[in-house]
Amino acid sequence: MEETTTRIVPGNEVCTLINVFTVAPERQAELVKLLEEATQEVMRHLPGFISANLHRNQEGTRVANYAQWASREHFEAMLRDPKAQTHMRAAAALVEKFEPHLYEVVSTHARSAP
Amino acid sequence: MEETTTRIVPGNEVCTLINVFTVAPERQAELVKLLEEATQEVMRHLPGFISANLHRNQEGTRVANYAQWASREHFEAMLRDPKAQTHMRAAAALVEKFEPHLYEVVSTHARSAP
Repeated sequence: MEETTTRIVPGNEVCTLINVFTVAPERQAELVKLLEEATQEVMRHLPGFISANLHRNQEGTRVANYAQWASREHFEAMLRDPKAQTHMRAAAALVEKFEPHLYEVVSTHARSAP
Repeated sequence: MEETTTRIVPGNEVCTLINVFTVAPERQAELVKLLEEATQEVMRHLPGFISANLHRNQEGTRVANYAQWASREHFEAMLRDPKAQTHMRAAAALVEKFEPHLYEVVSTHARSAP
């Protein structure tokens, strides 16, 4: 299994994007495929991209992307990239809504020692 | 800086909770503190808890928890835990809404080699 280079560490070392897509269950698979292609073909080659992790819920109604960018400025430059815009328009057309927000990590918590 | 044991790997090895809280900016700090206390005092001692990672957005309007549980059953058992319920009610009282969903990781993507 591939494992990303996603390391979750408190602070502003990276800019974290969490984007939750609300989708009809019959379109969840298509949305995942589109986001995978967008990430592989465009996003991961753009300056400042660190990693993306795509998630789906069992009910079929949500897809979530947990992604890291080097900075907010890199993320905003991606939003202006014509190839990225083409993919984002295609994703937007498939979903009911998408809710992207940029975060910093406040704190991390591991299980208590056994 | 502490670093969690959060490893993001495709598949159902873990059950991922992404919970996005919508909050008034003047209450974001209080919500983060409450979630940190709940995680440290209760959640991380419960069976099946692996890790939690708290995030805040710069605008003050969102807090997100990216957490891993050993299984959906462990997560659901937590929902029935009286101490956990006390913390969840306190958090619910502070926020406009919270949107927890359980996910599996579909795929992970790293930046292209330079």
